[in-house]
Amino acid sequence: MSHSFKIAIAGLGTVGAGTVRLIQKNAEILRRRSGKTIEITAISARSQKNRGFDTTGVTWYADAVEMARETDADLVMELIGGHKGAAKEVVETALKRGKHVITANKMLLAYHGNDLARLAEERGVCLAYEAAIAGGIPIVKGLREGLAANQIGHVYGILNGTCNYILSNMEETGRDFGAVLKEAQRLGYAEAEPGADVDGFDSAHKLALLSSLAFGTEVNYDDLYVEGIRNVTSADIGFAAELGMRIKLLGSARLHADGRVSQRVHPCMITVGEPIAMVDGVVNVVVCNGDPIGRAVFEGPGAGAGPTASAVVADLVDIVRGARTPTFGMPVVHLNKAENAPIDNHAGIYYLRTAVEDTPGALDEIFTQLREHSVSVKTSIQSVERAENGLLAAVVTQPCLESDIQAAILRVDALGSVKGKTHMIRIVSL
Amino acid sequence: MSHSFKIAIAGLGTVGAGTVRLIQKNAEILRRRSGKTIEITAISARSQKNRGFDTTGVTWYADAVEMARETDADLVMELIGGHKGAAKEVVETALKRGKHVITANKMLLAYHGNDLARLAEERGVCLAYEAAIAGGIPIVKGLREGLAANQIGHVYGILNGTCNYILSNMEETGRDFGAVLKEAQRLGYAEAEPGADVDGFDSAHKLALLSSLAFGTEVNYDDLYVEGIRNVTSADIGFAAELGMRIKLLGSARLHADGRVSQRVHPCMITVGEPIAMVDGVVNVVVCNGDPIGRAVFEGPGAGAGPTASAVVADLVDIVRGARTPTFGMPVVHLNKAENAPIDNHAGIYYLRTAVEDTPGALDEIFTQLREHSVSVKTSIQSVERAENGLLAAVVTQPCLESDIQAAILRVDALGSVKGKTHMIRIVSL
Repeated sequence: MSHSFKIAIAGLGTVGAGTVRLIQKNAEILRRRSGKTIEITAISARSQKNRGFDTTGVTWYADAVEMARETDADLVMELIGGHKGAAKEVVETALKRGKHVITANKMLLAYHGNDLARLAEERGVCLAYEAAIAGGIPIVKGLREGLAANQIGHVYGILNGTCNYILSNMEETGRDFGAVLKEAQRLGYAEAEPGADVDGFDSAHKLALLSSLAFGTEVNYDDLYVEGIRNVTSADIGFAAELGMRIKLLGSARLHADGRVSQRVHPCMITVGEPIAMVDGVVNVVVCNGDPIGRAVFEGPGAGAGPTASAVVADLVDIVRGARTPTFGMPVVHLNKAENAPIDNHAGIYYLRTAVEDTPGALDEIFTQLREHSVSVKTSIQSVERAENGLLAAVVTQPCLESDIQAAILRVDALGSVKGKTHMIRIVSL
Repeated sequence: MSHSFKIAIAGLGTVGAGTVRLIQKNAEILRRRSGKTIEITAISARSQKNRGFDTTGVTWYADAVEMARETDADLVMELIGGHKGAAKEVVETALKRGKHVITANKMLLAYHGNDLARLAEERGVCLAYEAAIAGGIPIVKGLREGLAANQIGHVYGILNGTCNYILSNMEETGRDFGAVLKEAQRLGYAEAEPGADVDGFDSAHKLALLSSLAFGTEVNYDDLYVEGIRNVTSADIGFAAELGMRIKLLGSARLHADGRVSQRVHPCMITVGEPIAMVDGVVNVVVCNGDPIGRAVFEGPGAGAGPTASAVVADLVDIVRGARTPTFGMPVVHLNKAENAPIDNHAGIYYLRTAVEDTPGALDEIFTQLREHSVSVKTSIQSVERAENGLLAAVVTQPCLESDIQAAILRVDALGSVKGKTHMIRIVSL
């Protein structure tokens, strides 16, 4: 217990400051659990302003890369963000110098995870990132260690609290996406530049990592299909309710029987009663289906200073204790290069929402186009509310191919009686 | 990858056989994830009958202790069960010989966890038991490592699938405990000797371990309050439904502000809508409330050969990878000896069910007794069904002390107008 473990922290934003506070607040627990005293010896940040914690003995750096290059710490935390620039250089510099690295940076690992993991292995150090996925929920550990005996076939979940908050709130208040987004920004649940969240990229970065952990495959962000929630309207939410469903932004990765992997992030309609359909607000949930475990569910706060710091410091305790688990659960050389299963080949049930002229036969024209692309209609509903220049109609298909529904939508949108663009949401059964 | 890791398995019941099957079936995944080939070199079992897996190269023992004494394996799995006799001797013998031990034996650890953990530390080996709690759910790892940065204040959950199945089924079918238990035994969800499950002891063993992991305290099974589900009737379930609640057997451990710990297993009424109230069947769920994580939830299959083997082999992969995490998350010498917070001092809301004469004033007599013990009544309901010789009535109290309600119940049961014993269930708000 007399030994200390030195750390250097790059970035003092919400997560960085939360991490320093947690290390100081729970110092005694951390000492008992890790066996050493955690000592913050260096911090890089834009300013040294008072953030309400003790920084005695800390060497300050304005330049994070310089800190990574010079520090004598045992471990460097990269809490800057972004997939290039300082974040990448800090991680690379630290690993090359034989320092362990902890990062909360899903984007960096989605883009460069394989190379950085290889670098960490070469130097015999850890590259840990529990905080990168689902905040405080120990899902990296859960997949990489807790379910290590399993052949995982499907991992999916609600990976972005901002989107889940917006969708929950749209449903609760009946307001449209734009209004709810503005409020979420005001409340601090959404960024001023919300694209990374609402366009699905944040979920996609996380899913690429989950997929690698679950299936023992190299990180493959390039082949991941991404679609955000900007086009979800309150009309969609209303139709979903009529159909006994709710709309969630899901990330879903499957290992198919032929060894190919599909990775998809998009809005989904899910039957009310499915546990994942009932998760509201900024909560994250990850579900793992494996053999022999069956279904394991992990749920908790997906963001915020506290939960994210909890994950950062859990990695720290592991490393101080001496754990040396490979970044993606096995050496990079043993990760498979899985072929991508393109979304075109996906067979599923689809919801379409479209605005049509209020004339006899207008809906029939749509059905004809669908039928000509081998898409059968299971249910159609017309809204009591009128769209601009016509009726708002929803259609639920029988199971069909993604390529067929996509081709059919192009033809439907070319019809004279159809106003604007048809919007499609995939209906999932879990 | 050329190295092998040798294991010896004591006990080939459901879990033991499931473990052997899993090690053989997922051999390639395990080799990639652990870095070594897992080799089963010894097995002890009552018979060598064919169980459908390959046992080439295995040395068979009739006596598990003899195997532990003689084997050259790196690790011994104790899958026999029980808190004394062969199970205990196998674990002690293996640890003393410097072998790692994996066990699924919650009872052994509830009784002897502190001593066995100390022994493992002295010899520098692991004593791992993920399979002892909540089947395949990685909750030991979740608490010991994933939430290691947190000050956990409350851990609770549904820890026994048999009880949860029985309660769910009683609710669904309206049948009484005895009938549902018989069916559960026929279906293999309950043992021929069901006491360990339905009297709450199995949940209690697990809770004692969760409590130690969560709070960094020595295992203290002796002070744990245990009450099973035998006295829950279909009338209770009906009254609960009228009150907007469901009945679950919960294990709950709290670290109080004064440093004392309460550990309790008993039936609870929980408001419908609380996620834990909605968990049905043989599923287990564990909820951890911590600072700074907030609430983290782990859910999955709580029993069965596959899920339990998943947990056993997860521990194995960890140990082969080189993890050496202390049994309860820190060396035994650093575990606190927490004082017990007795249930008498618990303040809560209580449900009472009692059979009273159908005479004017009979209920008033009960209310008087309650009032004299400082217990105020919030709600009372009379059942439309008649009890033997009278009415069946339910009472929900205002918050009061456990010692007061217990004293009041004794007085109520002494009333001439009360038939039989009053049954109490604690109402919890989570």
